[in-house]
Amino acid sequence: MVDTFRAATAVTSVGDGRYTGRVAPGWDIVGNANGGYLLALASRAMAEAVGRPPLTVTGHFLAPGRAGPCEIEVRAIRMGRRTATASAVLRVEGTDVLALLGTFADPRLDPDAPSVVTVEPPDLPPLDECLRGGPPTLGDGPSFGDRVVCWYHPDDSGFALGEPSGSARMRAWCHFADEAPIDVFGLVLMADVLAPVVLNRPEFPPSWAPTLELTVHIRSHPAPGPVRGLFESRVIRNGVFEEDGVLFDAAGSVVAQSRQLALIPREPSF
Amino acid sequence: MVDTFRAATAVTSVGDGRYTGRVAPGWDIVGNANGGYLLALASRAMAEAVGRPPLTVTGHFLAPGRAGPCEIEVRAIRMGRRTATASAVLRVEGTDVLALLGTFADPRLDPDAPSVVTVEPPDLPPLDECLRGGPPTLGDGPSFGDRVVCWYHPDDSGFALGEPSGSARMRAWCHFADEAPIDVFGLVLMADVLAPVVLNRPEFPPSWAPTLELTVHIRSHPAPGPVRGLFESRVIRNGVFEEDGVLFDAAGSVVAQSRQLALIPREPSF
Repeated sequence: MVDTFRAATAVTSVGDGRYTGRVAPGWDIVGNANGGYLLALASRAMAEAVGRPPLTVTGHFLAPGRAGPCEIEVRAIRMGRRTATASAVLRVEGTDVLALLGTFADPRLDPDAPSVVTVEPPDLPPLDECLRGGPPTLGDGPSFGDRVVCWYHPDDSGFALGEPSGSARMRAWCHFADEAPIDVFGLVLMADVLAPVVLNRPEFPPSWAPTLELTVHIRSHPAPGPVRGLFESRVIRNGVFEEDGVLFDAAGSVVAQSRQLALIPREPSF
Repeated sequence: MVDTFRAATAVTSVGDGRYTGRVAPGWDIVGNANGGYLLALASRAMAEAVGRPPLTVTGHFLAPGRAGPCEIEVRAIRMGRRTATASAVLRVEGTDVLALLGTFADPRLDPDAPSVVTVEPPDLPPLDECLRGGPPTLGDGPSFGDRVVCWYHPDDSGFALGEPSGSARMRAWCHFADEAPIDVFGLVLMADVLAPVVLNRPEFPPSWAPTLELTVHIRSHPAPGPVRGLFESRVIRNGVFEEDGVLFDAAGSVVAQSRQLALIPREPSF
């Protein structure tokens, strides 16, 4: 089986902390590569450079990323015993698209430590009773909906039908269209695949909500199967909103948390 | 009036994006400078370099910071019309202590845009009916409690009395001891001045919870007066916890949101 996501985030070391890769077609929303995809792609280069998976990674978005060859320049800042910290810049055809800072370690830093988890998985109906949704597409090539499939809670799917639910919230099942397993890099992606939560508020047009910053914390390795996401915004103010996400694996465990700061949609439509 | 915080975060440009400053005494917890203080100090150099205040800043903590001369090396990554992005490293006596990545802009990006805020200020009794708390101190010099004063909700103050409340939550009023006004850099500090929320869970010893990463989003300029903080953790797992914070100004508006990833306390005590 071809793992489309793995292929689309493959990177090759060319020495001195530099990696080459490709912003692959079909991972875009109307031409601009998805932010979570770019964060996952660059995180893979950083993880290879420091030899550990991402634990917490932050990306600041500098310019839209189009499909094409890219370079990731990684700088290891600290190689510690338990964790390693690195920064990076992702460039597409000479343009800086994403700046990153991350700390890398296996999320099982102390698996025997006491667990206290007070957030519940979203109460989602079975996948096939949810609304399959995807972003708008342009042209004939592969689209984001051919890469990642999201099944929205019926109560949160109003945005897709021109009837915002009224709550800045999205709950959905998510998996790769090719059913490839979701690893920690897949979690980085899945932290940014749903429609912006503000689209379920009537004040905002159904358009692009440009992400300024996205931070993903990996909390565990996911069990096989689709992930469930719960995304909400509590503060939409001054033209900016935060979007908090929690991803649960098929077994119901928290596997990642995310927060992004984004601009409210401004264009009348896509 | 001397503004102690302003003086303790003053930086001087020495050219090429480099700034000198001082990790001032008294901003430490048993000898290690407070993380929010270090983030505020470095953010000030970054803000000066790009000519705008912090909107979202992320710091990864590399080593404890002791009092003494420091250098902040800032690199402007993108100078845009609406926002500017920069990275930085804070060095104390030659040791990299903190790596940062931030986007800078006035938080009033679009003050006329619709506001939707669904988080309420914590229901705190008047300041003088709360428990004044501070971290443990060492020696005779100025201590953190001489810099920042926190008044904890009676229901959350159990941690200080050896009787954890049972909820990984802290709610408190916070202000500078000298009653200096709290500006956006003060908000960066205040995002990390309360006791770690895990200290209100009986599973964890009353000790240091080393921050791996701290992100602060500035959402508005605060009205004069103390700020109210609500800090919680929902996922303590694998030896790591997230701590989410919301800061409200005296008028009850959200002025900042923060999230950190930290290691659970391990030592038997301070």
